[in-house]
Amino acid sequence: MRTIKVGMIGLGTVGGGVVRILNEHRKNFLRDQGVDIELVKVASLDVEEAQKLGVGDIFTTDGFDIVNDPEIDIVIEVVGGTGIARKFVFAALEAGKRVVTANKAVMAQDFYELLELSGSKGVELAFETSVGGGIPIIGALRNSLIGNRIESVLGIVNGTTNYMLTQMAEHGSDYDTVLKEAQKLGYAEADPTADVEGHDAAAKIAILTTLAFNTEVVLDQVPTEGITQITPLDIANAKDMGYVIKLLAISHRTPEGIDMRVHPTLLPCSHALASVNGVFNAIFVVGDSVGETMFYGEGAGAGAAASAIVGDLIEVSQRIAYDITRPYIRFGTEQLPLKPMDDVVMSYYLRLPVPDRVGVVAQTATAFADKGVSIERMMQYPAADGSGNAELIFVTHPTREGDLKAVVAEIEKLGMLADEAVLIRML
Amino acid sequence: MRTIKVGMIGLGTVGGGVVRILNEHRKNFLRDQGVDIELVKVASLDVEEAQKLGVGDIFTTDGFDIVNDPEIDIVIEVVGGTGIARKFVFAALEAGKRVVTANKAVMAQDFYELLELSGSKGVELAFETSVGGGIPIIGALRNSLIGNRIESVLGIVNGTTNYMLTQMAEHGSDYDTVLKEAQKLGYAEADPTADVEGHDAAAKIAILTTLAFNTEVVLDQVPTEGITQITPLDIANAKDMGYVIKLLAISHRTPEGIDMRVHPTLLPCSHALASVNGVFNAIFVVGDSVGETMFYGEGAGAGAAASAIVGDLIEVSQRIAYDITRPYIRFGTEQLPLKPMDDVVMSYYLRLPVPDRVGVVAQTATAFADKGVSIERMMQYPAADGSGNAELIFVTHPTREGDLKAVVAEIEKLGMLADEAVLIRML
Repeated sequence: MRTIKVGMIGLGTVGGGVVRILNEHRKNFLRDQGVDIELVKVASLDVEEAQKLGVGDIFTTDGFDIVNDPEIDIVIEVVGGTGIARKFVFAALEAGKRVVTANKAVMAQDFYELLELSGSKGVELAFETSVGGGIPIIGALRNSLIGNRIESVLGIVNGTTNYMLTQMAEHGSDYDTVLKEAQKLGYAEADPTADVEGHDAAAKIAILTTLAFNTEVVLDQVPTEGITQITPLDIANAKDMGYVIKLLAISHRTPEGIDMRVHPTLLPCSHALASVNGVFNAIFVVGDSVGETMFYGEGAGAGAAASAIVGDLIEVSQRIAYDITRPYIRFGTEQLPLKPMDDVVMSYYLRLPVPDRVGVVAQTATAFADKGVSIERMMQYPAADGSGNAELIFVTHPTREGDLKAVVAEIEKLGMLADEAVLIRML
Repeated sequence: MRTIKVGMIGLGTVGGGVVRILNEHRKNFLRDQGVDIELVKVASLDVEEAQKLGVGDIFTTDGFDIVNDPEIDIVIEVVGGTGIARKFVFAALEAGKRVVTANKAVMAQDFYELLELSGSKGVELAFETSVGGGIPIIGALRNSLIGNRIESVLGIVNGTTNYMLTQMAEHGSDYDTVLKEAQKLGYAEADPTADVEGHDAAAKIAILTTLAFNTEVVLDQVPTEGITQITPLDIANAKDMGYVIKLLAISHRTPEGIDMRVHPTLLPCSHALASVNGVFNAIFVVGDSVGETMFYGEGAGAGAAASAIVGDLIEVSQRIAYDITRPYIRFGTEQLPLKPMDDVVMSYYLRLPVPDRVGVVAQTATAFADKGVSIERMMQYPAADGSGNAELIFVTHPTREGDLKAVVAEIEKLGMLADEAVLIRML
């Protein structure tokens, strides 16, 4: 049996984890899984990092050295992003190499093109790492749970924002403070946009939706709201009502189509996701036969992602070593419509900073009544910012989102807002 | 592509679930997974059940009709137990048929013989359903997490006892009452021994240990204690201290060997497993790379188990339809010793019913001191049973189990026990 030759593009924390696992466990993989996996080339811009990891002798700065190396069977892509990394993935498949990738952005954007290419070239594209870090959620949806008609996929899929929201909840810190902290600890990148604006979570729910509902969706179709507007004030208000705020990625099958979205969400403290803290991820899957299942683990961090990469690597290596073909699996055979965000029905938390003057509450409440939006509870208290304004907090009964937005627009039109309205969806 | 012919032995709740899934989803499996799966024969003792499920026309009362049918590719075994079911599994493999089984008892008892036979016959034996119902824990350990050196597997793996303990905790009911209730609801069998004595959980942790640590263990080697001794009194005492009682299946890698066991356990209410209630199962897996992961779902019930059976069925069917071999995976290549139960170090809850007389506390405490067992907290209160006895409750600091047992033996020898001592381990 021949040795499987692997090239890895990217040598950051995840790449470093993969190097460590292969160093430590290569002999066991040969003994127990029947595959001898050799890392023959690594590409990165950081030669010092490579030397530190003991791979300075198989180092190149050009990822295409790996893509074009005829000796290499499998390309691991852990660069990330849709720039050069996307080119590496396409080029590697074009060159007839198997690809193992952690790249959720590319998978969520180019899913069908990549699967098509991988099918036509007869080489596998493995992407367990793209969602949930070390949590084997892709494998579960593609294999063990395949007998189910999936009804819902829902969870916390971004470790960076979950760490930040946890810190804000536990220490009352504001957004900017926890962002700096997260950056210092390596949990957030220098440019945190993809995480804090929800794009990373949106990519993941697009991938999960594609697999769970067997329908064709891409990243751009996910209504997405990040956590940049979340304040300690709203977290404290939520807490007073017995709720926490989490960034959820959601996808439900409904009679009107797939209800898919990413947004901060007020969760009752008793909900299982409410106690998922720090960089941990947790994903619920509800199927018609299996009922409710949940998968939990570290969503970020070198070890968790490297674990998933190596899981894929061994599976793909076995297919090469034992000449095993994987049956072509069809995706997107159900073309389900997407439910427009305005038609989604939820409860809402709405905070309106208003001038503290006679008649404001009456006028505001009238705006709700006019649009037929029913209020479950309401509070008013003086704003803590010394502005002399008041904070009006509304929690609605389940309401069509379009109707609630009409209420807010009406209140704004009446000139009653002293500052921007804050709207957070509830579960 | 040819149709895959399946025979199913057993037509209880799980078998009924499989019939339903195949009826509802057969066309989708053909379209999306590329396999046409046809149920061609079912064996059961209950012809009426078969007629109700619409399979009266492919019915037989003899499982060997299925095992010996040359037309059949895959045998599903959902009879359970180590009697006739074990014969069916062996005979089907001998006859060169693939087997999908939910049978934890057979897998835990005959694991190596079965794997050997399946390997030598070149036919697959799939057993995802044997642990955790619909939770894809076997798949995770065999595939996605394979890059890890597993450190721990630990969880609630028996739905029946978890339902009973949950009812006892929530309603203060006693063991006999909740057992009858569970039997009425179909959660416990007429003979509940396998569940309540912990044998079912022991079989599951033996299978998980085999896979997670790649070592050779069988059912008989699992130190096992069931829930029959658990009283509302101990549950209430636990609650007062901020604990709940759960039946845990545990397996840790330690320097002295695998620490594997099944027993009721006091868990802090803040522990993630403390809120796993009813028939739900939850299993933690800790790996050197992936860190802590958790898998949660229904452990009992027709739907969950049928979901796992069909997941295996599709995978095996694809291998037949596309002529895919699975590389032979080696198990038990690490022969790890088992850590003797007496050497395990834990905290313990100990309840001693003693006569309420002068000197008892002093004598008891002296027994602890003599054996070097350190007490973390102690309570005494009058027994509620009108006996005039007192209840002495001790919680120890982490202690070698052998030492604690010596303390209990000493106290018993001194004639200080008015009734049996109750010892429950703590996490």
